[in-house]
Amino acid sequence: MTDNVVLFMNSLVSMNKRIIAVIGAGIADESLRKTAEEVGRLIARRNAILICGGLGGVMEAASKGTTSEGGTAVGILPQDHKNEANPYIDIPIATGFGEGRNVIIVRTADAIISVGGEYGTLSEIAFGLRMGKPVIGINTWDIKGIIKAENAEDAVNKAFEALSKC
Amino acid sequence: MTDNVVLFMNSLVSMNKRIIAVIGAGIADESLRKTAEEVGRLIARRNAILICGGLGGVMEAASKGTTSEGGTAVGILPQDHKNEANPYIDIPIATGFGEGRNVIIVRTADAIISVGGEYGTLSEIAFGLRMGKPVIGINTWDIKGIIKAENAEDAVNKAFEALSKC
Amino acid sequence: MTDNVVLFMNSLVSMNKRIIAVIGAGIADESLRKTAEEVGRLIARRNAILICGGLGGVMEAASKGTTSEGGTAVGILPQDHKNEANPYIDIPIATGFGEGRNVIIVRTADAIISVGGEYGTLSEIAFGLRMGKPVIGINTWDIKGIIKAENAEDAVNKAFEALSKC
Amino acid sequence: MTDNVVLFMNSLVSMNKRIIAVIGAGIADESLRKTAEEVGRLIARRNAILICGGLGGVMEAASKGTTSEGGTAVGILPQDHKNEANPYIDIPIATGFGEGRNVIIVRTADAIISVGGEYGTLSEIAFGLRMGKPVIGINTWDIKGIIKAENAEDAVNKAFEALSKC
Repeated sequence: MTDNVVLFMNSLVSMNKRIIAVIGAGIADESLRKTAEEVGRLIARRNAILICGGLGGVMEAASKGTTSEGGTAVGILPQDHKNEANPYIDIPIATGFGEGRNVIIVRTADAIISVGGEYGTLSEIAFGLRMGKPVIGINTWDIKGIIKAENAEDAVNKAFEALSKC
Repeated sequence: MTDNVVLFMNSLVSMNKRIIAVIGAGIADESLRKTAEEVGRLIARRNAILICGGLGGVMEAASKGTTSEGGTAVGILPQDHKNEANPYIDIPIATGFGEGRNVIIVRTADAIISVGGEYGTLSEIAFGLRMGKPVIGINTWDIKGIIKAENAEDAVNKAFEALSKC
Repeated sequence: MTDNVVLFMNSLVSMNKRIIAVIGAGIADESLRKTAEEVGRLIARRNAILICGGLGGVMEAASKGTTSEGGTAVGILPQDHKNEANPYIDIPIATGFGEGRNVIIVRTADAIISVGGEYGTLSEIAFGLRMGKPVIGINTWDIKGIIKAENAEDAVNKAFEALSKC
Repeated sequence: MTDNVVLFMNSLVSMNKRIIAVIGAGIADESLRKTAEEVGRLIARRNAILICGGLGGVMEAASKGTTSEGGTAVGILPQDHKNEANPYIDIPIATGFGEGRNVIIVRTADAIISVGGEYGTLSEIAFGLRMGKPVIGINTWDIKGIIKAENAEDAVNKAFEALSKC
C-alpha cells in the first residue's frame, strides 16, 4: 500500500517532468558549445529532461551540461546503433530513420532551444513552430515565431516562462 | 528476346525519369494555386514525375497540373489511409508517419520547387538544402541556398538547369 | 469543361485502382521468382498497381512481371537514394527509414501477397494482419490469419475476392 | 579534473547499461501482466534499462515492475503526444509514427523479451530476429529463432546469457 503510494507519487513526478530539446549543429565552435553546455546545466537544475539528437557539437555539449548536474540526457539518433551516441547520453534511442528522427525530437519536447545551427536545425525549428511549441533561439536562424534569447540563462527562463502559460 | 530489349529500354527510360517535388501549404490562395498548377504542367511536359505531400492547396494544384498533361503525380501522405489523397494523385503512399513524411518527399526528389508555404514547407526546404539538392523558391521563405524564381516557368527551368550540372 | 470532366473521370479511375503489395525476400530461388513474376503480371492484368520493397529477389521478379504487362511498379526503398531500386521499378520512393519502410508498404496496400520470405517478410505479414488487411500466402510463414494459396493465379484471385467483400 | 573523471566514469557506466525490450499486447490477462511485471523488476535488478511501447497491458506491467525497483522505463509511443504513456514510464518518446515505432524499440534494444502478444508483437519479434538480436519468448508466437523461456526469471537469465556471448 505504502509502496503503491510512493510509486504513484513517483510516477506523477515523472509525468510532470518537462522535456526540453536542445538543437544545434553536430560541429560547433567553442562559444556555441559553452552556451549549449550551460543550457544543459540549467535544464537539469530545473529538474527537466534534456532531449537532443545524441551526436556531437551542440548536442554533446548540452548532454554534458545536463549530466554534470545529475540530470537525464536522451539522444534520438539517426543511426541504427545506440553506440553512436555521444558519451554523455543516458538514454540513447537508435531510430535508424536518418533525418526523420528530427521530427521525434521536436514531438517529444515541451519546448525547443536552438543554439546556432545549420539546415538540420532549421528543419527542427520549422517542426517546432508548426506544432505550436515554444522555440527559443540563441544565435540561430531568423524565423518569425522564434523567441529570441541573449544567452543560456535567458533562453531557459524564456522556455519555462512560455511553458507556464500553456 | 525483343521483349527483354523493350523492357530494358523502358526501364532505362523510367530510371532516367526525374522526380521533382512541389512543396507548399495545404491551404493556399488562388494566385499560388495557379502558379503551382503551372509548375505541375511544366514538370509533366519535361517528362518528369511529380512528388508532393498529396493533400490540398499547392499540393493539389500541382497534382492537377501534372495529370492534366498526362504526367504522373505521387502523393506521400502523412495519414494512415491512401484515400486521404487529393483526387489528382495517381500514386498515393500512406505513410502514417505524420510530418515525418516530409523527409521522404525530399529524399526521393531530384529537385524541390517551393511555392509559398508555411512552417511545414520550411522543414522541407531545410531538408532539401541539408541533402544538397537544388531548392527553387517562388514567393517562399528567404533562406540562404534557395534559388529564387520569378514564376512557374522560371522555376522549372532553373530546376532542370541545376540538375543538368549534377 | 470537357477537359474537367475527363480529368475528373481519370482521377476516379485512378482512385479506384487497387494497390497490391508483393512481399518476399531480396534473395530468392528461381521457383519463387517465377511465382512472383507471375503474380506481378496478374496484378497488372487486373489493372492494379504493384507496391513492393523495391529491391531484388521476389521484389524484382514481381516488378518485372508487372511492368512487362504495362502495369506500374512502386518500390518503397529502405535506403536514402532512389537509384537503389531494381530496374523494373517505375516509381522509386527513397525513404531512408531502413526496415521502417515495411510499415509504409503494408499501409499503402489494399491486400498483401507473400511469396516465400524471411524475417523481414514476417514483419510485413504481421503488420498486414494487424491492420486487418487480406494477407495471401504462397509458400510462406504459417501464421493464423493468412489466406493460403497454391500458386500465383490462386493468390491473385483470392486477393481480389477478399477485396470485393471489403 | 576530478569532476571530469567522475563524469567520464558515469558516462562509461551509462554506456555499459544494457537496454532490454519487453514486448506484448496492450490488453493482456492478469497472468501475462504478472509475468511482465516480474520481467520488469528483474531487468531493473540487473541494472538494465527497460524499453517498451509505452502503452497498457504487458507494456504497463513491465514498466511498473522496472520503476518499482528504481529502474528506468522508456516508452516509445506510436502517438503524437507524450502524455499517452502509461503512468510508470520515466522517459516517454512521442514518435507520431504509429506502428513504425515498433522498429525503433527493437533497434534500440540489446535483447527482446516477448510476453504473450498479438500481431504487433509478432512484427517486433520478426524485426528482432532480422537484426540478429536475442529474442526470448514466454508464451508467445512459435517462430524459429526464438529462445523459449518458462517464466520471467528464466527469460531474463537467458537474455543476459545471450548478451554475454555477443
